[in-house]
Amino acid sequence: MNSYAYYNGKFGKREDILIPLSDRSIFFGDSIYDAAIGSYDRIHWESEHVERFLSNAKRLGIKHTFTKNGLSDLLREIAVKSMLESYFLYFQLSRSTPNRVHSAVGASSSLLVTLDPIKIEKSPHPLRLITTEDLRYGYCDIKTVNLLPAVLSATKAEVKGCDEAIFVKNEIVTECTKSNISILIQGRIITHPKSNRILPGIAREHLLAECKSIGVEVIERPFTKEEMMEADEILITSTTKLCRRADMIDGVSVGGKSPALADSLCNLMYEDFANFCIK
Amino acid sequence: MNSYAYYNGKFGKREDILIPLSDRSIFFGDSIYDAAIGSYDRIHWESEHVERFLSNAKRLGIKHTFTKNGLSDLLREIAVKSMLESYFLYFQLSRSTPNRVHSAVGASSSLLVTLDPIKIEKSPHPLRLITTEDLRYGYCDIKTVNLLPAVLSATKAEVKGCDEAIFVKNEIVTECTKSNISILIQGRIITHPKSNRILPGIAREHLLAECKSIGVEVIERPFTKEEMMEADEILITSTTKLCRRADMIDGVSVGGKSPALADSLCNLMYEDFANFCIK
Repeated sequence: MNSYAYYNGKFGKREDILIPLSDRSIFFGDSIYDAAIGSYDRIHWESEHVERFLSNAKRLGIKHTFTKNGLSDLLREIAVKSMLESYFLYFQLSRSTPNRVHSAVGASSSLLVTLDPIKIEKSPHPLRLITTEDLRYGYCDIKTVNLLPAVLSATKAEVKGCDEAIFVKNEIVTECTKSNISILIQGRIITHPKSNRILPGIAREHLLAECKSIGVEVIERPFTKEEMMEADEILITSTTKLCRRADMIDGVSVGGKSPALADSLCNLMYEDFANFCIK
Repeated sequence: MNSYAYYNGKFGKREDILIPLSDRSIFFGDSIYDAAIGSYDRIHWESEHVERFLSNAKRLGIKHTFTKNGLSDLLREIAVKSMLESYFLYFQLSRSTPNRVHSAVGASSSLLVTLDPIKIEKSPHPLRLITTEDLRYGYCDIKTVNLLPAVLSATKAEVKGCDEAIFVKNEIVTECTKSNISILIQGRIITHPKSNRILPGIAREHLLAECKSIGVEVIERPFTKEEMMEADEILITSTTKLCRRADMIDGVSVGGKSPALADSLCNLMYEDFANFCIK
């Protein structure tokens, strides 16, 4: 199946969409983005993704003319054009200036959208993870394309035959390269609080809501690598993974001490998506 | 005068060169770069710029087939094609993958070069600076395009009518958004030591060499914002600025207590460039 892209009004196959040098993603990573999964004209957690996107644009002072409804309509329109039954939708707003100058005074903006076919599985294998030093900057709560540390760590994970890398900063577990991480200890869920050190993940938010709905206490506090290695279960959440258990970190078996609760939570997250699909 | 660009073998006017979505600068800032000034077929400090570029590519594991001589030849060839008498030469090596996946396993690479006309002045006005919190990541010694914190701070500087922003981390002055910073105190020059917190600037290295050549003691140690505000002189070095004095920081007059020495150093740096031009 093909992948598609859209750039400032032009829609086509992914390989036919080209980006001009005025797009400051190229020289500075001066862009925010968001990503969702969807089916035909419906985008999963659409409102939250679009809201976070616009809020990030505002935080960086990126000028644009999108309203929340207008952008949602456009994304849905592009998704429908792709004819993809099930897709990964990526959308990025970059500042644009005629020349490469650091200052963004007077910059306009450009919208890039890509669509790739995707399949979300119900019971995929548990994840294998590595830990890696968190040397990222102090803007991790904004979804920008300054993602080099994530690239380096995700590459290291793949080279080691693993699925994801966990960032650890001064013994504290922050998050993964493209997902949040939470641990279950004695029937409670513990996850890093929102701060400039983690992305406020939408799947993370839904997992915490599911926990509350079934009476699992939610504790938002920093936890250590040691706590994680000893935890009953380790849960990874993201837009595309929804909720997944991890069973190995740095080659050591982890979790597996509360499989019923972990599976319930993963299933609740999957059922929510499955319901969305058949609506 | 026109600006020019080159991308993977294609040369043209800047606005005619387009970048495909396989270029991971767009999605991840997965690129290293360098920049130099030059005149016709000669590139100022060519060897150092090309060496740093290739060393940074190696540090990030970006695969390519350039030798030092091969890349230097190519850059000179592109510069000559531009017919620009005096130019700013920017070159960037990005990883490329067919799709947007964080891991860079199996990635190839793409070379982007841009050329803009430039004029280097002998006695430009002293610089006005602001200070800004250094929230950057721990890879500041590698010249990558993960430059969002520099963009935000340079924008703030321009909005305040200033030329540059100084990064301050826990009271320690690290560097500026696109230049290094040193201070003169009692006839000695003090500058942040090389570490993952600053870029090892080539102009910085030349300034330190000029200092040594005229008997000015060089001390490479972290210095505080307070020391900077009280320093005899504040010197800013970069590829395009060469060496410039600053006379205002955060709206307060600074420096000006050792103008003869500061001017000598700035002049030595300019003369070196002027000699390069007339060779």
